Amino acid sequence: MSMHTVVRVGDLDVIVKPSPVAMVWYEPGRPHEALAAPGVRLAPGEALVEVELATVCGSDVHTVSGHRSAPAPLVLGHEQVGRVVAVGDGAVRADGSPLALGDRVVWSVTVSCGDCDRCRRGLAQKCRTLAKYGHERVHRGWELSGGFATHVQLRAGTATVRVSETLPAAIAAPASCATATAVAALDAAAARVELDGALLLVTGAGMIGLSVAAMAVEAGAEVIVADPDASRRAFARRLGAVTVDPLARGAAPERLDAVLARFAERGLTEVLVAIEASGTAAAVRTVLDVIGVGGVAVLVGSVSPGSEVSLDPETIVRRLATVTGVHNYTAVQLERAVAFLERAWQQLPFEELVGATHPLAELDLALEEAATGLHVRVGVAPGRRLI
Amino acid sequence: MSMHTVVRVGDLDVIVKPSPVAMVWYEPGRPHEALAAPGVRLAPGEALVEVELATVCGSDVHTVSGHRSAPAPLVLGHEQVGRVVAVGDGAVRADGSPLALGDRVVWSVTVSCGDCDRCRRGLAQKCRTLAKYGHERVHRGWELSGGFATHVQLRAGTATVRVSETLPAAIAAPASCATATAVAALDAAAARVELDGALLLVTGAGMIGLSVAAMAVEAGAEVIVADPDASRRAFARRLGAVTVDPLARGAAPERLDAVLARFAERGLTEVLVAIEASGTAAAVRTVLDVIGVGGVAVLVGSVSPGSEVSLDPETIVRRLATVTGVHNYTAVQLERAVAFLERAWQQLPFEELVGATHPLAELDLALEEAATGLHVRVGVAPGRRLI
Repeated sequence: MSMHTVVRVGDLDVIVKPSPVAMVWYEPGRPHEALAAPGVRLAPGEALVEVELATVCGSDVHTVSGHRSAPAPLVLGHEQVGRVVAVGDGAVRADGSPLALGDRVVWSVTVSCGDCDRCRRGLAQKCRTLAKYGHERVHRGWELSGGFATHVQLRAGTATVRVSETLPAAIAAPASCATATAVAALDAAAARVELDGALLLVTGAGMIGLSVAAMAVEAGAEVIVADPDASRRAFARRLGAVTVDPLARGAAPERLDAVLARFAERGLTEVLVAIEASGTAAAVRTVLDVIGVGGVAVLVGSVSPGSEVSLDPETIVRRLATVTGVHNYTAVQLERAVAFLERAWQQLPFEELVGATHPLAELDLALEEAATGLHVRVGVAPGRRLI
Repeated sequence: MSMHTVVRVGDLDVIVKPSPVAMVWYEPGRPHEALAAPGVRLAPGEALVEVELATVCGSDVHTVSGHRSAPAPLVLGHEQVGRVVAVGDGAVRADGSPLALGDRVVWSVTVSCGDCDRCRRGLAQKCRTLAKYGHERVHRGWELSGGFATHVQLRAGTATVRVSETLPAAIAAPASCATATAVAALDAAAARVELDGALLLVTGAGMIGLSVAAMAVEAGAEVIVADPDASRRAFARRLGAVTVDPLARGAAPERLDAVLARFAERGLTEVLVAIEASGTAAAVRTVLDVIGVGGVAVLVGSVSPGSEVSLDPETIVRRLATVTGVHNYTAVQLERAVAFLERAWQQLPFEELVGATHPLAELDLALEEAATGLHVRVGVAPGRRLI
């Protein structure tokens, strides 16, 4: 690969050494190929970030395995933390302050115009001209569009949020997908139910589900986490949750009905919030069934095609129940995700959720490892310069 | 029947002439039987109301036909307007002011304690010790518990709202079921979507659906009403709605897709609110399918057992869609329903929705006529003294 790349910022040239490299994915079964960005031109509002650590999200695994359609070839990866190495004219952070060289940042999955009807309705993540990091076909001018790369070119309309120098990279990287989505899921619940004191069920103890659990405990909810994986349930208990094994049978104490009966004895007779973060049809059915009067079921895990679930309209009506979908998040929710991690990370063992960290050249291995599910997250660290 | 009844109010006896009579329903196919209330004792907070006009709600028809289980024997009827003829100690209106002899009033379907966890969560209509007018097994001490009677005994915890002397009874009577439920349905939508300028679909042009349509037009929404009945669609158009015939095929201009295409040409590309007021599984499916990004489907019609409907979790997630059930309403929503009718009735032809009005003795005939669906409402007027 070339030894450096010229980054054009307005009338200035910035030399980046070594040259930015992105890993390009083509199709299931085919190894990634390294692509050197031949040159980068930063438009007003843009920035170039050197990636410190990326983490592999479940949706990356879905795409690589062919369970999720994607416009290939593309650069995957949308959970990462990095440092700003070049700043285009007028580039700003999510709070409106100027983005500065050297900022350590995370950024939104989405790039939004801020001006269309959906952006104006507060749904910037569904902007009419939406682009998404880690989700776009590679094209000239935006090769550095995913986190599985040495650098990412941030476009105007990205919510960019500073993180402190002390926040561990393994904790910061998932902020821009799992943690911010967890904030959005809890916001959707809190719009209808006071979380403090509420009985709250989370199905699926992946990164989103565990993040939801930790935040819900902080908000004062009584939290139940359901997951078939014993080690993930053990982790959830360390966050302060009570756990349920959806596969438990007979008189097992971790059966959902047994757990609910124990809460009922304490006067918590209704699950008022159920957040479905597993993406399985069985869990969707569980959350629809379990919520009580005035309760809300938040669906957040179902992001790849799955089975339909039957819904009994009469019980929705008579329970005044709400079912609501959450996909991605807003800029403010990413800011709140970072704020949560900054204040909570020293008390919460989230760093343990990231298993091995692999160099970028071993991205295929990292994705294979992520697919085993042994770790909630697997890291990719281009900074190790093994490529 | 006896010529008068003594109503005991604290230490006072009030004579009511002629004696209150309630119509008691036992089972499908059996005619109603008149029951004279042998004596009424008003506890603190209670009141006795002489019924001016009751209207037959769809749920009364469902119960009489056996499609909806009910604790018989009972006095049906929960949509009515009447005049206060005796007031217990401390009885108040919904706004907290003292209830007065001679007040012309409507009142909530529900009687709530105001103190349990659900009442405190703002869900008084699901009170832990809920009672409902027109829904309770007749028992000594509350024989006058439904609107198909000369009098109704209002219990403490009922939301009682004054109506003006000029409001036609046929317009006032449905306030306490259809109109207030319509307010609740629109509130559920407005909690997520700005109604002004939004494209809004209502399925089912019964009393709730038409009330929703009228209020949504007033709120600035672009309203589409779907109903297979041509005369109900014609009525909806007089309210300012565009109409859809769910049975239309081929190139019919009243097909939903054709109507949506015409709105899309005007820039209204997404249905942001869909209110399902028909109770049919097909319409539930329609509202789930039609809502756009950030949209909300309000289910309000499904109050008797029906088919389950399949739900695709992924499309709920990716659309950030919300499905929410509404059943009954709160005191404030009943007050707003009355306020809407008071300001709108002279411009809106709602009086026409009530077909024939029958004397109480012909209640069975009134229910048979209501079951034909020829009129949106059928009236029962005990004041005609034909019993």
